[in-house]
Amino acid sequence: MIFASDNWAGASDKVMTALTAAARSTRPAYGGDDLSRAVERGFAELFEREVAVFLVGTGTAANTLGIANYARPGGVVFCHRDAHINVDEAGASEFFGGTKLVAVEGRHGKYTAEALAEAVARFPQGAVHHGRPVVASISEITEFGTAYRPEEIAAIAAVAKRNGMALHMDGARFAGAVAGLGVAPADLTWRAGVDVMSFGASKTGCLAAEAVIFFNPADSRDFGFARQRAGHGFSKAWFIAAQFDAWLDGGHWLDLARHANRMGARLAQAIGASRNARLAAEPSANEVFAILPRSLDAKLKAAGAVYHPWGIESLPEDERPGPDEVLVRLVASFQTREDEVDDFAAHLARG
Amino acid sequence: MIFASDNWAGASDKVMTALTAAARSTRPAYGGDDLSRAVERGFAELFEREVAVFLVGTGTAANTLGIANYARPGGVVFCHRDAHINVDEAGASEFFGGTKLVAVEGRHGKYTAEALAEAVARFPQGAVHHGRPVVASISEITEFGTAYRPEEIAAIAAVAKRNGMALHMDGARFAGAVAGLGVAPADLTWRAGVDVMSFGASKTGCLAAEAVIFFNPADSRDFGFARQRAGHGFSKAWFIAAQFDAWLDGGHWLDLARHANRMGARLAQAIGASRNARLAAEPSANEVFAILPRSLDAKLKAAGAVYHPWGIESLPEDERPGPDEVLVRLVASFQTREDEVDDFAAHLARG
Amino acid sequence: MIFASDNWAGASDKVMTALTAAARSTRPAYGGDDLSRAVERGFAELFEREVAVFLVGTGTAANTLGIANYARPGGVVFCHRDAHINVDEAGASEFFGGTKLVAVEGRHGKYTAEALAEAVARFPQGAVHHGRPVVASISEITEFGTAYRPEEIAAIAAVAKRNGMALHMDGARFAGAVAGLGVAPADLTWRAGVDVMSFGASKTGCLAAEAVIFFNPADSRDFGFARQRAGHGFSKAWFIAAQFDAWLDGGHWLDLARHANRMGARLAQAIGASRNARLAAEPSANEVFAILPRSLDAKLKAAGAVYHPWGIESLPEDERPGPDEVLVRLVASFQTREDEVDDFAAHLARG
Amino acid sequence: MIFASDNWAGASDKVMTALTAAARSTRPAYGGDDLSRAVERGFAELFEREVAVFLVGTGTAANTLGIANYARPGGVVFCHRDAHINVDEAGASEFFGGTKLVAVEGRHGKYTAEALAEAVARFPQGAVHHGRPVVASISEITEFGTAYRPEEIAAIAAVAKRNGMALHMDGARFAGAVAGLGVAPADLTWRAGVDVMSFGASKTGCLAAEAVIFFNPADSRDFGFARQRAGHGFSKAWFIAAQFDAWLDGGHWLDLARHANRMGARLAQAIGASRNARLAAEPSANEVFAILPRSLDAKLKAAGAVYHPWGIESLPEDERPGPDEVLVRLVASFQTREDEVDDFAAHLARG
Repeated sequence: MIFASDNWAGASDKVMTALTAAARSTRPAYGGDDLSRAVERGFAELFEREVAVFLVGTGTAANTLGIANYARPGGVVFCHRDAHINVDEAGASEFFGGTKLVAVEGRHGKYTAEALAEAVARFPQGAVHHGRPVVASISEITEFGTAYRPEEIAAIAAVAKRNGMALHMDGARFAGAVAGLGVAPADLTWRAGVDVMSFGASKTGCLAAEAVIFFNPADSRDFGFARQRAGHGFSKAWFIAAQFDAWLDGGHWLDLARHANRMGARLAQAIGASRNARLAAEPSANEVFAILPRSLDAKLKAAGAVYHPWGIESLPEDERPGPDEVLVRLVASFQTREDEVDDFAAHLARG
Repeated sequence: MIFASDNWAGASDKVMTALTAAARSTRPAYGGDDLSRAVERGFAELFEREVAVFLVGTGTAANTLGIANYARPGGVVFCHRDAHINVDEAGASEFFGGTKLVAVEGRHGKYTAEALAEAVARFPQGAVHHGRPVVASISEITEFGTAYRPEEIAAIAAVAKRNGMALHMDGARFAGAVAGLGVAPADLTWRAGVDVMSFGASKTGCLAAEAVIFFNPADSRDFGFARQRAGHGFSKAWFIAAQFDAWLDGGHWLDLARHANRMGARLAQAIGASRNARLAAEPSANEVFAILPRSLDAKLKAAGAVYHPWGIESLPEDERPGPDEVLVRLVASFQTREDEVDDFAAHLARG
Repeated sequence: MIFASDNWAGASDKVMTALTAAARSTRPAYGGDDLSRAVERGFAELFEREVAVFLVGTGTAANTLGIANYARPGGVVFCHRDAHINVDEAGASEFFGGTKLVAVEGRHGKYTAEALAEAVARFPQGAVHHGRPVVASISEITEFGTAYRPEEIAAIAAVAKRNGMALHMDGARFAGAVAGLGVAPADLTWRAGVDVMSFGASKTGCLAAEAVIFFNPADSRDFGFARQRAGHGFSKAWFIAAQFDAWLDGGHWLDLARHANRMGARLAQAIGASRNARLAAEPSANEVFAILPRSLDAKLKAAGAVYHPWGIESLPEDERPGPDEVLVRLVASFQTREDEVDDFAAHLARG
Repeated sequence: MIFASDNWAGASDKVMTALTAAARSTRPAYGGDDLSRAVERGFAELFEREVAVFLVGTGTAANTLGIANYARPGGVVFCHRDAHINVDEAGASEFFGGTKLVAVEGRHGKYTAEALAEAVARFPQGAVHHGRPVVASISEITEFGTAYRPEEIAAIAAVAKRNGMALHMDGARFAGAVAGLGVAPADLTWRAGVDVMSFGASKTGCLAAEAVIFFNPADSRDFGFARQRAGHGFSKAWFIAAQFDAWLDGGHWLDLARHANRMGARLAQAIGASRNARLAAEPSANEVFAILPRSLDAKLKAAGAVYHPWGIESLPEDERPGPDEVLVRLVASFQTREDEVDDFAAHLARG
């Protein structure tokens, strides 16, 4: 009953087999290899267009370097208050790009185009004291397990473009979003106006594999230098490429994501069906937020369930847990088994 | 005949087997796992003392973060002119710590304690305009394939300490140095006065595994935050730990390094024995620098040999290649086979 | 009727006379001069204790360098949402120290110790992803013209200390606070727990004169280098010292501040007495926030009054202007004349 | 006999009179004033073309921000080994732009186009590890008191342009160069290929007045934000503008520079005529480098002469002082009197 995070799960056998095979070879360093080329082609096919692809090892690296690519002096980045870049990257965006992060509020991890427009309005053009908008960032899926629909992204993109901002997507769990929404990757990204994204594989079956994807390749002319300067250019870059290559092959990535989503849905169903707990939000993929009585929370933990409590500020005031309740996050992964979920459900039902 | 770099080589079967086993498991993220603990114990044993160990994915990350740990406003870092941190990290040290790198000259990749003292003397204490010494950095083995002896390191450490500097060691090929010198790791590092080192495994049989080792653990109190902020904290940190665990186990790391060194020595012998080429320096490990006639260089490449030319400024003026000659670097790895070297030797002999 | 800002006012004759006299001399550069020493003594006397004094030219420099002095990797700085460092310094704190600014809410420009404690609680110790508290910053007087009382500062300082933070004070208008509260400078600062402050003279009768004051001089060991590296070490540092020397002499600074405060009070009185406008907050010094009908605002401007509108988010929702009203800021300075204020009052009364 | 530096001298009466007059006024803050506009027109006239002008308070700020304007990830800045930006700015360029400074050697403070080309050749295009050339910087006059001729600058500019670099000029003593060479400012700058310069007035009769001049105004679109974020945007920006306005008026700046140069030439003549000392280089303006016997150096100091010793590495090996000699720098200023120089000359003659 490990629902702590999808980054507790290992890597799929298919990915490891490919990696092991690659490890027996000798290959040009720093991305001059055939596997890196194959991954570039793989992403181009996936997104139905030419893209510039840069492989890195962590989601924080992908987000930070992708956003810093659009930083300028006095630059301001808008993101949801709960965004990973705002609360879980130790100030990486502030450090790399010298950018200020401005938190936008919004229900269940999502902000609206209107909320963004209102936040941006506080930065009139040419007001050097305040700084200027450079990037709007959204997470897909969000940190609250929900997903933006293409039309919601397009509305946000329109505000971003009107204000001279690039639109960045933190896609640490993008595979889950595609699986959950049943929408083409292109529709969730460049067709909706996304300029750059972090496409994560580490949380869905790889060891450490993240790609920064530029939908306007010309935007990335400085990126190779920026990645190297940040220590994020791997000498054996093929070790990331080999993971992605196997992961993208034959829809393996979607299979892994679909499994995790199914386990997430099974968890959600168990919670929804229980009189002892309730869902905090309708999950779109593999992350499930629930409100539990403290007594039940203690029993579940005693029974061996592993998951994290969550800050109640992420919920609107009128949806927050009561004094004897706790908000928790449960994450399913490609490794999660039905019997784990059912075991958890049984404990839930018992109360 | 691939002698381009040891970072063209894959990873050892033992390492990959261990990694594959680990990938099937579920483990706490961000270093809260058993493998990370095991690697910490492994390094403590290897160095015969308590150390603070931080795993990262690239040598540039290890060097940059290790050095930046000692950065202060106006900080100046001294290193050899050819040091990786000076010429191959895209300005990472300047970017991360805002530090100025001052290049010290020295024959065959090594600088002396005297040369360091002379360079430092240009920064009198309290002269805020000039900046102040914060770190002296040496590479072991050096970028010219040579090695510092413990007493040379101790002399440099004495100058560093007298001037308030930490002593950093870039140990991207430290395994080769230990294997080549036949000296205990402790004698090459903390017993000689090294404060922090980058201990690299990526060039000697791992995929991507580098450790920042602090010999005074208290020095590292900010390092966890610094690593995270730089995007170098891996969620599945066990993927680096698993590599190191297998690599350190049973002296596997030294076996790999010894093989690479033997192949390097075989290359050097072939060059030394040839009338058509000459060694540019006596190699201490797996990197061999040679001076070839341009015509021979062309023939070797046509025959399929892969290696890189090297800047002649790395040699003293009176040792540089003539107008019809070229300085080249040949690197053996754990994957290099005797027959590759012998094939190369045969081509050399043919002229 | 210029109430745009106190930084629109020139400099006092006494200050300019001293500066002109100094300009005829030859003096050691970079602070090695007698006037710099005199200013250090002046501040020590003013604060009734040894202090470390560093002169700079702008308030943003003073704030940013003072705060960055306490920055560490992953560092988080807490300040009021309307703080100058948060909204008017173009991201300087993010850039210099790589620090994240976390905005704390609070009525009329002030936050409480409780609000700070709540904000800090989201950063549990050792949580490298979130970052860690390093500085709490308050403005005295605040950006809404109000002042913290010594006991309020002490309560905030207690929270800061408990959480390992330094307490920073933006004293761009500190002279006005001392004049307005009638409290000793020591009571408003180090006796209440302030560690470092920006003591501004530019807004109260000088051209460009700001001092970073460290109440624990040992904290400042890196500051000289940091100032120089930032380009904020003036070669003719005596030009700032000469201003401060004359400004501090004989209570001139308090005379200037008292005049500005009196003019502020006269403005406030006129507004309070008017049926056509109302005060948005009770002013503590020379800044007056008022809510005017839009029609009156237009008439005042047409009559030549100069002042700035202010963002309504600075007020609690139930105190905000109505749809036909506007929130404005009026600032009196040492140059403001009674007849200007009375002229404005007359226009107000007319409606 | 104060020849320590021209930044020990105060400010001219004309400048102070103008500043005092301006200080009695009320003026828009942050450069929205008439004096700032007048200075912009003054520079346009001086340079015979449209320019973008940004006022700052220190030479380090001007240099650093001007150079950082062209910084990009992995950016490398080339400058003379003795350049102020390399040895006297506490690592400001490394800090602000994350740029690496590469020192180019050259006799008497000047480097040649050939030396620059050779240094740049070590950074082949697209080599992300090495970084890439972004700026070439020269000082006019140089740190060794010499001056580049327009054709020398044009040759350097050609190398810069061929390699995609902007050409930056540190003109801390540009007035002295114009006065010394008798060449139009335009010929020394944009007509020779300079893109951005620091035009200093602080060393030639002002208190603190430096201008960053962009000869291609479009280059400066980010500069206002960068200046503000660095704390170098003065609220009472007119205090710098008022100095420049008086300084540029009626050729006052050239009068001041010519006087300093005449005093420098008088010093040089005295040294050249002395059997007890010799010139280290032929001065082009107000800085004179001389080699003195140590005994004479001691006597001069005892007699009250104030000047600084200079590092002998600034001279080619065959021109360096002998073991009983010392290299010194003597700087004349607008305040230097003939009788001071003659007094010094008399001491020199006496031996």
